[in-house]
Amino acid sequence: MKFIQTPVKGMQDFLPEDMVLREHVLGIIRDTYAKYGFTEIETPVMEHIENLTGKNGGENEKLIFKVEKRGRELEKALGKVRGSADMLSDAAGTELADSALRYDLTVPLCRYYSCHKNELPTPFKALQIGNVFRADRPQKGRFRQFTQCDIDIIGDPSVMAEIELIAATSGALHSIFAEVGVSGFTVHIGDRRILRAMARSAGFSEEQYDDVFIILDKMDKIGLDGVREELLANGYSEQMVDKYVGFFRLYEEGSAGDVASFIGSTCADVIEEGVAGDMEMILSAARAMISDDITLKFDPTLVRGMSYYTGTIFEISIDNYSFSIAGGGRYDKMVGRFCGQDAPACGFSIGFERIVTILKDLNWKDRDAGAKKAYLVDMKGAADRVTQVFGKAAAERAEGMTVVVQPQVFGKAAAERAEGMTVVVQPLKKNAKFQIETLEKSGYTDILKVYADTQL
Amino acid sequence: MKFIQTPVKGMQDFLPEDMVLREHVLGIIRDTYAKYGFTEIETPVMEHIENLTGKNGGENEKLIFKVEKRGRELEKALGKVRGSADMLSDAAGTELADSALRYDLTVPLCRYYSCHKNELPTPFKALQIGNVFRADRPQKGRFRQFTQCDIDIIGDPSVMAEIELIAATSGALHSIFAEVGVSGFTVHIGDRRILRAMARSAGFSEEQYDDVFIILDKMDKIGLDGVREELLANGYSEQMVDKYVGFFRLYEEGSAGDVASFIGSTCADVIEEGVAGDMEMILSAARAMISDDITLKFDPTLVRGMSYYTGTIFEISIDNYSFSIAGGGRYDKMVGRFCGQDAPACGFSIGFERIVTILKDLNWKDRDAGAKKAYLVDMKGAADRVTQVFGKAAAERAEGMTVVVQPQVFGKAAAERAEGMTVVVQPLKKNAKFQIETLEKSGYTDILKVYADTQL
Repeated sequence: MKFIQTPVKGMQDFLPEDMVLREHVLGIIRDTYAKYGFTEIETPVMEHIENLTGKNGGENEKLIFKVEKRGRELEKALGKVRGSADMLSDAAGTELADSALRYDLTVPLCRYYSCHKNELPTPFKALQIGNVFRADRPQKGRFRQFTQCDIDIIGDPSVMAEIELIAATSGALHSIFAEVGVSGFTVHIGDRRILRAMARSAGFSEEQYDDVFIILDKMDKIGLDGVREELLANGYSEQMVDKYVGFFRLYEEGSAGDVASFIGSTCADVIEEGVAGDMEMILSAARAMISDDITLKFDPTLVRGMSYYTGTIFEISIDNYSFSIAGGGRYDKMVGRFCGQDAPACGFSIGFERIVTILKDLNWKDRDAGAKKAYLVDMKGAADRVTQVFGKAAAERAEGMTVVVQPQVFGKAAAERAEGMTVVVQPLKKNAKFQIETLEKSGYTDILKVYADTQL
Repeated sequence: MKFIQTPVKGMQDFLPEDMVLREHVLGIIRDTYAKYGFTEIETPVMEHIENLTGKNGGENEKLIFKVEKRGRELEKALGKVRGSADMLSDAAGTELADSALRYDLTVPLCRYYSCHKNELPTPFKALQIGNVFRADRPQKGRFRQFTQCDIDIIGDPSVMAEIELIAATSGALHSIFAEVGVSGFTVHIGDRRILRAMARSAGFSEEQYDDVFIILDKMDKIGLDGVREELLANGYSEQMVDKYVGFFRLYEEGSAGDVASFIGSTCADVIEEGVAGDMEMILSAARAMISDDITLKFDPTLVRGMSYYTGTIFEISIDNYSFSIAGGGRYDKMVGRFCGQDAPACGFSIGFERIVTILKDLNWKDRDAGAKKAYLVDMKGAADRVTQVFGKAAAERAEGMTVVVQPQVFGKAAAERAEGMTVVVQPLKKNAKFQIETLEKSGYTDILKVYADTQL
């Protein structure tokens, strides 16, 4: 029999020490969001193939794992594929499949909400933790199955949604990193409406926005001068580009501290009413809730890739790391696209795998672990795989005596576990030194060898 | 765009109240096994198709969901399938796939152990919780994606493995059911070696065992007389059948209370040495660890379906329910079949979905839930989606004043969350009555309407 010992390409097995860390982080996330009234939901890892190939997932749709039809449906699909020799392999693959593994948690959330909205409260505050799958080229830190952790509020059109999301997420990250001594988070808050108004104010037309934003999004890599050059290289007029770049110079000089006056100097004439007020309320209310060592700032350079965002967008960065560890925003039109009836929505996605990687690199140790004790029971001389503690009794029983066994070691272990300790009972091995070292590595501090005459 | 709102056929979405129950049960399982030194592991939901079609999974292999190859590999496979018109659809499906969704957690565990054994302690005590997938005909209580919860000890040939597994599993079930007032568990412990020896002693030949055990396994439905009839109908001699059935009459009459003498009266001459001692040690040591209201008994009628069991087998039943809620046994030869090197192994699988269904039917309520408070903030009259708490400030700011906002309601909420309470802040809706009812249904007991002049 052919048997492959490694996991499927690009996928991971988690060792016990990995799992302790992962469960620890998930525990903080669950506890924190629960206090904000978020409730956990779960959706299947498989979705109808129609839902995953509707062009809502952008590039991710090219990376889906398709699941084959079965039985008569497969037979029919095979007939079709065999019958049309010019059907391209991608189309043939879709024909042969009836479902696929989800590439994110947003599509399943929209399907879930549209299916169950009558059973759910409004606003609906959802926490979803689950595996997603992408047939990406495997590379360091990128896997084909990984855990996403999404928090969404559906049905609240007010900035209260943003405030609760930012406060809860900052709180969770603060708790996760505090114990490894890492602080220095910055919550960057932008708004698609301000982004668009600034582009409009500089003279760009609506069709040019996407192109302009893609270039602006590179600012942290190429700097503002780089952005200017690239905009010029793309053929935009020097006048427009300089006006646009000028807005961001104001930001770099610190003028965005007061949102209302920054908007006043950049795009007041073209922006819809209320945007500055929203932003200020988010900043001040979130400030009232989050730890002082977290910086909150209005960041007009924030773009975020997904085209479905309609208002506020946010991202949380961590000092000394070049990537963000959480991001999200408001997407008021997306639920409607899926379920036919608009519902305002706002969400945050926590970069769970990134966080776990950082903590692992920082040599995170489990501080919650209580006392761990091991009993190594000597099996030598004990009859027939029966431990020596029971050996004498077994021998006497074999001679016809009625013997009541006192399973001391197990009784002791049971009592200690009841007190909250972690206790293992194992046969003492020939290489006791190695056995003890292994246990010590796993955090066992109290290791006892038990012989027939040991008094417990 | 075609969009399907229901989950994929046979799969489930979990509502928030379902998840609270599921996470609660998983929490008890995790905590209990941790105290016994079991460590959690995780494997991908996808496995190499070769590993899932090696005839180790029996009937389950017919139910696998196959995942398609991609890119050039898919193209090549399509070429093959198109080129051989007589390739049956099942074979074509396998040709087009490179992986599949796992149908249980045992195959992944064996693969995991063979891949990582040098990084794992011996004995290795593993807890694995994960989704498995079977393309079964959907029916009440049977789903195509469901959670399994397996606990295994690899590398301990002694009965300590059985004792720890039985004690931990009984303990977990006791904790899970105690709060709904359900007790009355019975741990049935049998042994494949005794089962075989009894059949041999009655005169059956080795090739007949499987047939005999399949009939014996129906005893709880058809009774011992039914078993007798069916054995006779299958052509076995009355002499053999009556001798065999006689053994079980002894058991029904209560003679199995003393394992050694039961074996003495049934199969002492053909059984390997030490089996009775093993069984007695398991019974007495487990008794020392588990709660008094759990019955522990030697049950020679226990069969358990999977052919890979080699020694002890066990099952836990619950009074007034016709199905078992946990089962397992020793499978010393299986790891070797997968990884080429034998390793003794013993495991328990908890019927997680069954347990959740029972608790739900018993109207389980979350007793861990702390105080839950809701602030419903009146948005009327507040400028431009800014809540009234901030409304005045926004208006004044619009007039050019510098105003420091005191986000009272959020500050108050933050302080209460820090004390451990669950607090939500929401806009007050027009239909406040319905909003409040919905919150009360979700367990919010303290619901406050906040107006501009509310003193918090």
